[in-house]
Amino acid sequence: MDFIGANILSIQQFERGDIDKVFSVADSMKPYAQRQRATRVLDGAILGNMFFEASTRTRVSFGSAFNLLGGAVRETTGFESSALSKGESLYDTARVLSGYSDVICMRHPQEGSVSEFAKASRVPVINGGDGANEHPTQALLDLYTIRHELISKGRQIDGLRIAMIGDLKHGRTVHSLSQLLCLYKNIHVSLVSPKELAMPEYLVEALREAGHTIVISEELTASISQVDIAYSTRIQEERFQTKAEADLYRGRFRLNQSIYTEFCEPNTVIMHPLPRDSRAEANEIDSDLDGNPNLAIFRQADNGVLVRMALFTLVLDVVHLVEKSAYDVPWFSGHRH
Amino acid sequence: MDFIGANILSIQQFERGDIDKVFSVADSMKPYAQRQRATRVLDGAILGNMFFEASTRTRVSFGSAFNLLGGAVRETTGFESSALSKGESLYDTARVLSGYSDVICMRHPQEGSVSEFAKASRVPVINGGDGANEHPTQALLDLYTIRHELISKGRQIDGLRIAMIGDLKHGRTVHSLSQLLCLYKNIHVSLVSPKELAMPEYLVEALREAGHTIVISEELTASISQVDIAYSTRIQEERFQTKAEADLYRGRFRLNQSIYTEFCEPNTVIMHPLPRDSRAEANEIDSDLDGNPNLAIFRQADNGVLVRMALFTLVLDVVHLVEKSAYDVPWFSGHRH
Amino acid sequence: MDFIGANILSIQQFERGDIDKVFSVADSMKPYAQRQRATRVLDGAILGNMFFEASTRTRVSFGSAFNLLGGAVRETTGFESSALSKGESLYDTARVLSGYSDVICMRHPQEGSVSEFAKASRVPVINGGDGANEHPTQALLDLYTIRHELISKGRQIDGLRIAMIGDLKHGRTVHSLSQLLCLYKNIHVSLVSPKELAMPEYLVEALREAGHTIVISEELTASISQVDIAYSTRIQEERFQTKAEADLYRGRFRLNQSIYTEFCEPNTVIMHPLPRDSRAEANEIDSDLDGNPNLAIFRQADNGVLVRMALFTLVLDVVHLVEKSAYDVPWFSGHRH
Repeated sequence: MDFIGANILSIQQFERGDIDKVFSVADSMKPYAQRQRATRVLDGAILGNMFFEASTRTRVSFGSAFNLLGGAVRETTGFESSALSKGESLYDTARVLSGYSDVICMRHPQEGSVSEFAKASRVPVINGGDGANEHPTQALLDLYTIRHELISKGRQIDGLRIAMIGDLKHGRTVHSLSQLLCLYKNIHVSLVSPKELAMPEYLVEALREAGHTIVISEELTASISQVDIAYSTRIQEERFQTKAEADLYRGRFRLNQSIYTEFCEPNTVIMHPLPRDSRAEANEIDSDLDGNPNLAIFRQADNGVLVRMALFTLVLDVVHLVEKSAYDVPWFSGHRH
Repeated sequence: MDFIGANILSIQQFERGDIDKVFSVADSMKPYAQRQRATRVLDGAILGNMFFEASTRTRVSFGSAFNLLGGAVRETTGFESSALSKGESLYDTARVLSGYSDVICMRHPQEGSVSEFAKASRVPVINGGDGANEHPTQALLDLYTIRHELISKGRQIDGLRIAMIGDLKHGRTVHSLSQLLCLYKNIHVSLVSPKELAMPEYLVEALREAGHTIVISEELTASISQVDIAYSTRIQEERFQTKAEADLYRGRFRLNQSIYTEFCEPNTVIMHPLPRDSRAEANEIDSDLDGNPNLAIFRQADNGVLVRMALFTLVLDVVHLVEKSAYDVPWFSGHRH
Repeated sequence: MDFIGANILSIQQFERGDIDKVFSVADSMKPYAQRQRATRVLDGAILGNMFFEASTRTRVSFGSAFNLLGGAVRETTGFESSALSKGESLYDTARVLSGYSDVICMRHPQEGSVSEFAKASRVPVINGGDGANEHPTQALLDLYTIRHELISKGRQIDGLRIAMIGDLKHGRTVHSLSQLLCLYKNIHVSLVSPKELAMPEYLVEALREAGHTIVISEELTASISQVDIAYSTRIQEERFQTKAEADLYRGRFRLNQSIYTEFCEPNTVIMHPLPRDSRAEANEIDSDLDGNPNLAIFRQADNGVLVRMALFTLVLDVVHLVEKSAYDVPWFSGHRH
């Protein structure tokens, strides 16, 4: 794909070469995110960080990624008593807001809303999540993390063995990740969930058509015994009719250090899209794993900044200029690297 | 008026020469807003963007205008559980907040609040809307748009023929625009509204005293047949006792492409303060006009950034410095111009 | 203490020499806060201004302090429908958010939460208020103001005579100030409150152990007759069971110009942590004192910016670089100094 001026709306836009490109640029962003260096490449540029649905971490991650490139951020953090409630169309909102910035990141509760917005926007739009539909930067950061964790073990994404665990019916992240994995070869996927929360059939089919091996199970321990990545997800309480219904499933697939030690291969990497539910009744990933060096959940969050920086520089066509306007960080940054 | 360090609270501050000055500076801001050039003239300056009432577009427009000049923005987006609810006076709020920035833009639901705030502020204050009272930058951007649309047809504001349509009783923008038009000559104004939502008499009087021709009507099609500008407004549901009462008037003066073609002169410009109500029952300006090059509603929004940039540079006295700290934009900005 | 990379969580971290250091750096920040000069020393740095509880003035003060040093600010202004409501631990929140900025300022309604957060954070954390517990920058700005007001009279903190007035039971600011005063010598403290809202005994003991003279009283006028500072506080309505209970105490210790003239020594300085309650039934500090040059309440707010700038430069180790990246302010700043 041609990244310059492009909208980033769906992982379906990406071919394998595109992903390689994003990841290679993301790699080059590390010195900036880790504060050995700073860059002013987007000094004077404005991100419109339009969050019509609350999401502190995603919003701040996009904003920080843009600040790390030297740009400024204008944002909104909810519907407020917004124009949309006065009957404004997404078309109008897009036409107006796209006059205020150089690029827009948008989150909105309604499926398809970001694509509709992008059609009317005069600047590139990056999807920050549109309801149950897509959250492409999350999928990219997940795959980037997998790649990174495997590389440190001399492996690559082709040949990956991964278990996806939990609410596979509602989990937008595991859906998107599954779609991305279809671009790779020879992957072994274990799908671990209660029957009622199984991965949608069309995604299972897509994985099979890509030539991957699929194992479906309701049993955690056997499923994580021979994988490189155990990707756990939260029961998405907000997608159930009642809390009671969600409670039926909560805590069914808890992973903790003793299970890890007994059943997993050494160095099995644990991932989770965050937030993890640390309440006693859920506790998908026990805090006794916090000291485990293979717990990659916070590296995922850090990688999100790299991937978002990569997308901004690609879409705004400044990849080749980043280093030119770079300088050493003069302030204390000792804890970060 | 002397702009340097001045508060911008009301359109009544402006004489015709002042408006010429604002508009001429606004013209010079175009390369920056359209991203051919960027400027760092306000690098290090801080805007306090104090929105004690939600208004996403106005807030982001002011913030972006300041960012486009190189400045930083601190903001608030509602009352929060704010000090005002603990009994703090506007005087105190102003004395405190004016220590945090170089200029303040303030919106507040209470009429007169911004002026009261400005009296105690130690930095210049720009009124971003104080209840039903004033929203001077909206009035300026409307008039700037009219001027701009007319210029491209070899005309000027003197001699303008304009129809104002809809809820002329509650519409703050048409009130302010009427007052501004009193500074010009030989204007023909058609006021089109239900009788109950007529333009307040004191404004009609003011227009007459300025020597303008006023026609009052309840009939849309005849009123728009010989005008340069058809300025439509939204039924301000929030100003009525009940939604039912507002519904009585909603959709009474719909403008669409077939009406436009049948009744308007070629190149009649359509304006609206936005947001337009695009729900089927209202639909003041039909979306079938979106492709009409004379639909100026999004140019109005874009012009808002220019006018706000102009006010910031005038009030902070940096008009002569903008170009000195300018540079070419190195990032992709292809869709914008 | 070693400021570089340190968390600023509690006034108990500070010894007298540390305070001297903060105040001396704060003094050097004046030209920047008053806009004779600007500095880019933190150009490229990011503050995570994480306000999980609303507080407009404290939030904007921290943000402006960081902007005044050239840095960028990402922020959150409430719980939103945040991850914490989905069961996320403070540990996780801290691990994630600390990947997005160079330093974090955090306010949170829960006592001890900021310290817990700081343990997991990878960047320095400054406490912006954690419930009824601590608000160290408020205590520092109060003491800085006292020092500054005394210096202009040829005095110093040692030997200070101060009256603390109002709700001394719930007032976090007078608690913290009392603790800081224990680091100084020979202070005379009058504690003026209804018996039910008396200063907690452990703080009275601490002041006595520091060798200070303590007078406890329920009577305002006698208590303010021989003091350098009259420090008044608001009845903290939100800490009472009912508004009616708070109303019992509201307005019991009103200070106005005629009381001031009759009972205070000339040049007695009036302080208050703000917001002051200016409603008729409360009116702790009457607005007829607004013209009194000894009313220091707005100087307190201004000093807050200086103290916060000082902490940022100390923690990020750029004190010696501030002047190197400084430049003259080219925009209008006439009202500020």
